[in-house]
Amino acid sequence: MRYRLDIAYDGTDFSGWAPQPGRRTVHGVLTDALQRLVRAPVALTVAGRTDAGVHASGQVAHVDLSGELEPDRLVRRLARLLPPDVRVRAVTAVPPEFDARFSALRRHYVYRVTTAPWGADPLRARDTLAWPHPIDLDAVARASTALLGEHDFAAFCRRREGATTIRELLRFAWSVDADGVVRAELSADAFCHSMVRSLVGAMLDVGRGRRAVEWPAGLLDRAERASDVAVAPAHGLTLVGVDYPADDALAARAAVTRNIRTR
Amino acid sequence: MRYRLDIAYDGTDFSGWAPQPGRRTVHGVLTDALQRLVRAPVALTVAGRTDAGVHASGQVAHVDLSGELEPDRLVRRLARLLPPDVRVRAVTAVPPEFDARFSALRRHYVYRVTTAPWGADPLRARDTLAWPHPIDLDAVARASTALLGEHDFAAFCRRREGATTIRELLRFAWSVDADGVVRAELSADAFCHSMVRSLVGAMLDVGRGRRAVEWPAGLLDRAERASDVAVAPAHGLTLVGVDYPADDALAARAAVTRNIRTR
Repeated sequence: MRYRLDIAYDGTDFSGWAPQPGRRTVHGVLTDALQRLVRAPVALTVAGRTDAGVHASGQVAHVDLSGELEPDRLVRRLARLLPPDVRVRAVTAVPPEFDARFSALRRHYVYRVTTAPWGADPLRARDTLAWPHPIDLDAVARASTALLGEHDFAAFCRRREGATTIRELLRFAWSVDADGVVRAELSADAFCHSMVRSLVGAMLDVGRGRRAVEWPAGLLDRAERASDVAVAPAHGLTLVGVDYPADDALAARAAVTRNIRTR
Repeated sequence: MRYRLDIAYDGTDFSGWAPQPGRRTVHGVLTDALQRLVRAPVALTVAGRTDAGVHASGQVAHVDLSGELEPDRLVRRLARLLPPDVRVRAVTAVPPEFDARFSALRRHYVYRVTTAPWGADPLRARDTLAWPHPIDLDAVARASTALLGEHDFAAFCRRREGATTIRELLRFAWSVDADGVVRAELSADAFCHSMVRSLVGAMLDVGRGRRAVEWPAGLLDRAERASDVAVAPAHGLTLVGVDYPADDALAARAAVTRNIRTR
């Protein structure tokens, strides 16, 4: 049976999602807990492999477990097995066509920055960048809007073998919340490696007046990473959600795929 | 010149506010930073001496510093001198009649509890109690309202030499925020030692159905601490604000006091 896991973590004390020998990773800690629970090897597939220090409130993974397990019971048992910095918020039985990575339609991230001269709220210092500089939100909004749509974002990507850098940026909006914290919200079909942090880093330079509003869009369609784009620190970033098709659409999509294959 | 400091801290790694030899306290860390800044001994007076593990977003203290110092400059310099878990959000020059402790009219606290079976959001685990039990909010609201007004709260206080346990509880309200976290908001003229956590602890037992709605009010006017009142864990609690009279009212009040004294 295939299960969808909705996962939250504080990335501070993790070397990111992806397994790395000798490092504490979210993948590793979750795999350990699941294996202790089912007493068998498990293979997790994730929607977005977040970097070291990046957080998640809405990460999604899937896993195949033998036998029928009661999802609510899995949630309660995982709550006891996992450390407080990783939580499985929900377990849902899903159709075999559901793939946390390949079925994902859109990923949503939030970056939090405070410009307060005194720094970040101590209880939110783990997920808020203290940036004691001005941010011209009007300039930043215009520069961000100019990046929307499908482009080659290579200038904003760290190279990974064989990975495309053509992405569709669906949302890049800036706002100020009730506590005065600046929030950048970014959505795309997918993001290439370090793309969110590079986009935010570029905008912080625009917001401070060090770069023109036109500068970030001028970097689009470059063939490789722009070395003058600053990568904003990891700890301000949180993966807040992933969108999937409804279950019936998943099944229909899979049926079409099978049809094409058997023709 | 007297200055008011508006202070926030993550209480996790502090042995509370009050100075204790060999312990890391908020008073100690702030005093060190101020003394490095003015190169002279300073004496801080605080509105509410929070216990070990209790947080603050709206703590207030006052300090007398010689010479005229520019408040905004003090904020920026303290931001660099202090560790990230203590922040001075604002410095304000105040009349000599302002006393962070004795001028305070009301203290406001918030206690955060989640009943989610999966536990607390990892990014808010430091200031949220994971309480995987039901909370009957209707019962808790009625039991809390029954405590409002001026009473001897000795049943809910840890004894301190010479401290009165007669307090006026002005607000004790429960709500659920957008993230599903249960928030208790408490306001009083002042709270005796461990009073907020004892009140919340009593309500968690009412909310779970272990105690009747009438039980907490039945403990009022007892002469001493009720040993069957559980003290809720410190980390769910945050001091969110302190109210003071306006500056002109402070001065008027002080003038009246002087008049009475000189008569």
